Amino acid sequence: MKILVLNCGSSSIKYKLYDMTDESVLAQGGAERIGLDEAFVKVTLKDGSKEKIMHDMPSHKEGVKFVLDLLVDPKYGCLKSLDEIDAVGHRIVQGGDLFEKSCIVTPEVEKGIESLIDLAPVHNKGHLAGLRAVDALMPGTPQVTVFDNAFHSTMPPYAYLYAVPYEFYTKWHVRRYGFHGTSHRYVSQRVCEFLGVDIKTQKIITCHIGNGASVAAVKYGKVIDTSMGLTPLAGLMMGSRSGDIDPSAVTYLMQKTGMGPQEMADFLNKQSGVLGITGISSDMREIENADNEGNERAHLALQMYNYRIKKYIGAYAAAMNGVDIIVWTAGVGENQEGVRWDACSGLEYLGVKMDKERNHVRSKEQILSADDSKVKVVMIPTDEEIVIARDTRDLVEAQKK
Amino acid sequence: MKILVLNCGSSSIKYKLYDMTDESVLAQGGAERIGLDEAFVKVTLKDGSKEKIMHDMPSHKEGVKFVLDLLVDPKYGCLKSLDEIDAVGHRIVQGGDLFEKSCIVTPEVEKGIESLIDLAPVHNKGHLAGLRAVDALMPGTPQVTVFDNAFHSTMPPYAYLYAVPYEFYTKWHVRRYGFHGTSHRYVSQRVCEFLGVDIKTQKIITCHIGNGASVAAVKYGKVIDTSMGLTPLAGLMMGSRSGDIDPSAVTYLMQKTGMGPQEMADFLNKQSGVLGITGISSDMREIENADNEGNERAHLALQMYNYRIKKYIGAYAAAMNGVDIIVWTAGVGENQEGVRWDACSGLEYLGVKMDKERNHVRSKEQILSADDSKVKVVMIPTDEEIVIARDTRDLVEAQKK
Repeated sequence: MKILVLNCGSSSIKYKLYDMTDESVLAQGGAERIGLDEAFVKVTLKDGSKEKIMHDMPSHKEGVKFVLDLLVDPKYGCLKSLDEIDAVGHRIVQGGDLFEKSCIVTPEVEKGIESLIDLAPVHNKGHLAGLRAVDALMPGTPQVTVFDNAFHSTMPPYAYLYAVPYEFYTKWHVRRYGFHGTSHRYVSQRVCEFLGVDIKTQKIITCHIGNGASVAAVKYGKVIDTSMGLTPLAGLMMGSRSGDIDPSAVTYLMQKTGMGPQEMADFLNKQSGVLGITGISSDMREIENADNEGNERAHLALQMYNYRIKKYIGAYAAAMNGVDIIVWTAGVGENQEGVRWDACSGLEYLGVKMDKERNHVRSKEQILSADDSKVKVVMIPTDEEIVIARDTRDLVEAQKK
Repeated sequence: MKILVLNCGSSSIKYKLYDMTDESVLAQGGAERIGLDEAFVKVTLKDGSKEKIMHDMPSHKEGVKFVLDLLVDPKYGCLKSLDEIDAVGHRIVQGGDLFEKSCIVTPEVEKGIESLIDLAPVHNKGHLAGLRAVDALMPGTPQVTVFDNAFHSTMPPYAYLYAVPYEFYTKWHVRRYGFHGTSHRYVSQRVCEFLGVDIKTQKIITCHIGNGASVAAVKYGKVIDTSMGLTPLAGLMMGSRSGDIDPSAVTYLMQKTGMGPQEMADFLNKQSGVLGITGISSDMREIENADNEGNERAHLALQMYNYRIKKYIGAYAAAMNGVDIIVWTAGVGENQEGVRWDACSGLEYLGVKMDKERNHVRSKEQILSADDSKVKVVMIPTDEEIVIARDTRDLVEAQKK
């Protein structure tokens, strides 16, 4: 079975084609600047090298079409015909409270995703455009949607509700949804396989720390809390996102700057976080370099960044009455040992004891804590695409039966 | 030495007159509805009974004047002449980053408080009006200001800064200040006297849970973090305040409701929290009663309320690498055993073991944890006024030397 996984953003399409017999990746790449000038696709060739192909893509339909053309191209592709693709799986950021798990796309599912555009305007519009393009270009091919917040749907109401009038929840669906769910799901399950323990007995805190970042408390296999909220702005300090701030600071800054609500939200998403504090960059590698060169604001940003992760670990340990495993994953979590080290320092009260040498590693399944650490701290490189591919396979196979 | 402690709000003046030889309270009461119709003063008489005296008070000056008149009134007062009052101490909510401790009022101090009106418009205006009224009515009497956030001024920058552009801090002083500092200070010091331990060796989490509520991490006598922020809206769920929510939820709700920034801030302060979830009341006693009668929304509100306190306890345990003492204080903290019980349940991983019988108590200095609890959980009724009176005495005496 061959499955194409698509992640259609507002102006981009990432793709990965799997052969599910051995879960090998047959082709991958990404279209960028869809609907803009100088659009291109970056393809990873069989030898691992990357090639950039300029190609005009005025809409998602043209974008998907060009990606499909490349898949059957003798040089860039690996298929003789698109008929070889058995199913397409899509990443969907916002499933709201309509979708508690992955599902086969039907007109009702499309309508559901459309009805949630309001809660994730940028993302869900791109996803829908992608779904519809596949429908038009590969009619009859089953499609599956995998929702970024589905894994968080097990949170109890006291954890997902905000202390605002209850009507805001019933009328406008204002609540904590959480994001990165596919990643939290993958790493929480994978870490238990890796350690040879049963997830149903484990209290796990998963730290998905990338340009966007979130922490989840996974108790006995189910999420009971997570740091992102109604949107991916809440929680930790991120590359360019503020994370949690006094809600009054939002209105105060609007009064001071004269920004309207949308402008303010954009500002807190794109001009804040590490970028806002340092004025240098949202990229944690550059911040670490600046810190090493003695930049004080970079040092401050790192302290803030790591301290907030530590506080969330503490809060979720309280929520679960302890923790057995802490998992690090995603761009920063897999590659920046300093962040892991600082956030996990001073947690001896929890039974965390890091091993400096083991922590000196990049993107590899590995235990980072000392042998006598009560809490296992583990790095698990995330793989959201394989979860999407597996869900797609499982649902399509189940439907055939 | 006789010291008058004043807490001048936007339309109210609370007063307490102390004889500092034995810290006894000679008189106390409060003026309400200043500047409004049907203004009155409620006086506590010597026998403990209360009397309500209607009296028109168009401004704080008339309010302070009437309070002073009552202090020398044969029936309601205890003084022969106002000359007996050696000094006046004021509670000031917002000292920003200008005031790190209590100080004698000078024209510069007044100017400083005035310059912070922007950060606490309602409170600081009332405080200033009170200061000026005393100045006019009791010229030459030394006045001292005790700031609600001064005790929090020891927080490190990585704990008090928000992840927004650094210029917002330098230009508009946007940062975490914290509030209830006088209470956190009193109970953290008092609990160490009570337990006979040295505060310089203790990691203390102080839970000031009243209609407004905040938690502080007091490490070796100094605050390193606290849950309120730029304003008293942040942090815990409160009677009518939302506490922390996704900053994007603020802008989203503004778009949905059409509210402007000030209206939204007022709404999150006055119509949210426990009141918003239950639709019944902001008073936790009423919510507990409703819960006992089977009201599901009241039950949910209590779960949310207690869970958030628990998460802050967990976060601050992480911030301090453990905790030795948890203190409960203020209206809810001193009187509602259910809140204390739930928030401290399931913290065995920290070494917290509550004693149900000991916890069945109201507003009394008492250990609430079991003898074999590693963490001491203690109730300490707060007394912010005595701290203000002591600071006033100390500063006035020091000035005399």
